[in-house]
Amino acid sequence: MIHIVGHTAVDHISRVAHLPKENQSTHITERRILFGGGAANIAAGIAVLGEDVTLHSCVGDDFAGSEYEKWMETLGISRQFFTVPGTHTPTAFMFTDDAGDQMTFFEWGASKAFATSEAPALPLVHMATADPEFNCRVAEKSEFVSFDPGQDVFWYTKEQLESILSNSDILFANKHEVQKMCETLGTTKEALIKMVGMAIFTMSGDGSTLYAGGSEHVIPAIPVTLADPTGAGDSYRAGFLSAYVRGYSPLACCRVGTVTASYVVEHTGCQTHLPTWDQMLERYSRHFGTLEQPAPRG
Amino acid sequence: MIHIVGHTAVDHISRVAHLPKENQSTHITERRILFGGGAANIAAGIAVLGEDVTLHSCVGDDFAGSEYEKWMETLGISRQFFTVPGTHTPTAFMFTDDAGDQMTFFEWGASKAFATSEAPALPLVHMATADPEFNCRVAEKSEFVSFDPGQDVFWYTKEQLESILSNSDILFANKHEVQKMCETLGTTKEALIKMVGMAIFTMSGDGSTLYAGGSEHVIPAIPVTLADPTGAGDSYRAGFLSAYVRGYSPLACCRVGTVTASYVVEHTGCQTHLPTWDQMLERYSRHFGTLEQPAPRG
Repeated sequence: MIHIVGHTAVDHISRVAHLPKENQSTHITERRILFGGGAANIAAGIAVLGEDVTLHSCVGDDFAGSEYEKWMETLGISRQFFTVPGTHTPTAFMFTDDAGDQMTFFEWGASKAFATSEAPALPLVHMATADPEFNCRVAEKSEFVSFDPGQDVFWYTKEQLESILSNSDILFANKHEVQKMCETLGTTKEALIKMVGMAIFTMSGDGSTLYAGGSEHVIPAIPVTLADPTGAGDSYRAGFLSAYVRGYSPLACCRVGTVTASYVVEHTGCQTHLPTWDQMLERYSRHFGTLEQPAPRG
Repeated sequence: MIHIVGHTAVDHISRVAHLPKENQSTHITERRILFGGGAANIAAGIAVLGEDVTLHSCVGDDFAGSEYEKWMETLGISRQFFTVPGTHTPTAFMFTDDAGDQMTFFEWGASKAFATSEAPALPLVHMATADPEFNCRVAEKSEFVSFDPGQDVFWYTKEQLESILSNSDILFANKHEVQKMCETLGTTKEALIKMVGMAIFTMSGDGSTLYAGGSEHVIPAIPVTLADPTGAGDSYRAGFLSAYVRGYSPLACCRVGTVTASYVVEHTGCQTHLPTWDQMLERYSRHFGTLEQPAPRG
């Protein structure tokens, strides 16, 4: 069982003729309501790949009976949810104009309750963005910890980062997050990697780099017809973790992550085009050769 | 039976720490989902005041079974709705920062279908904002017409304004809308009033002016503790029209409108604090004296 801690969110993705300035209004030409939230995206990816997954999120009064709840039910995602009365499930409103410029309004909503919730002790947990303090407490109590600061990297204090990294076995980050962590900690990328033992740094369309056992492997991205890069990172993590619990090597796990992400970016939305394990395998073999059977892990 | 033509909409009213610039994001600190849309607000006001009302709106797939539908059912609003598959019910997202500055994103959604819908012939109709062409066709076919261009005043061509005004018995507008209509028509305020016979121009917190039978009456606003001015104009129209079908004089109708609006602005939302006829009467008598029985209309 893989546990995922972090946001379940509803994304309103809108196109507008132009972005407004202060005290202006604009027209929405198209709006789609998509299921999102980093943790929920990862859990959905794992569920479709066929692994057991439990999602730990905070949701509002609007969640019970919603389409999103039905969708999670369909996927078979186990849920340890804090339902917070009088709040909304976290919701993001993203507006993009014809020039590709964006404005985002994010409602933290029910996720405020992370700060005061009791942290679970978990055998294998991936922590997506959520309250830093809560994540630190989960990491401290859990056995195997995968950490992913995401855009919340700016909210972590030096002490929180030191605490959570000392309790983490894997670190996921993009180059901006790596840079910010190094700044906050007053350290180098090399020292950061040493703190966790295994690190996977993603480089948008340029693939990812695995740092493990003192060596470094670059995993190239798979060229696809890109529809929407949103959700690429989350699905990469879903693929990595699913392969990891099946016992594959870290490099094979990164490749599974890469293949999983290549499906998701072909369609708009983070949970709209997730591959099954067999679909993943088929594309894997075309790009990376046959996925070798896992060796027993030491 | 009073018929109201125009938008039924869902309003997401959010407070943000600061309004974003392009390619920035911001946090929503509070979000309320309120029932709105100018025509629906007026219909709700009329229903609570105790008059029979039919609302003509375009709604999306999301309306059937929604909280908003249940609310209209509770109020007893008759509905002649065009349900437009594959669209949303018109939705507005309003973001206000601590300095009071705003950004609004409006999704026309299902209301696009007004343009191609068949216009009904109605005995007594008030036209709130909606498609100008559709409104012109309704005005042409209907008997007694009350017209309210609202913020859509910018979309009316000279020909459309001339057409709809020539078929209107009452014109409602604020000073910006009056100015815009005069510009589009190349005429004066006095000439504009003569085109319809009876005009009511609102002046925000400063009350309203009735132009009828060649004379002019100023109706002062009622001083109240203002919570939210949104919906003041719609509830004024609801009060006016309810009194009008009961046979009261135009001046008494304006006063009923003024009293109705004074309730609505005491609470946030356009349909959250509507008075019954008896509640309206009570406040009316305190401010304007006893509401005289209607005289037979000539």
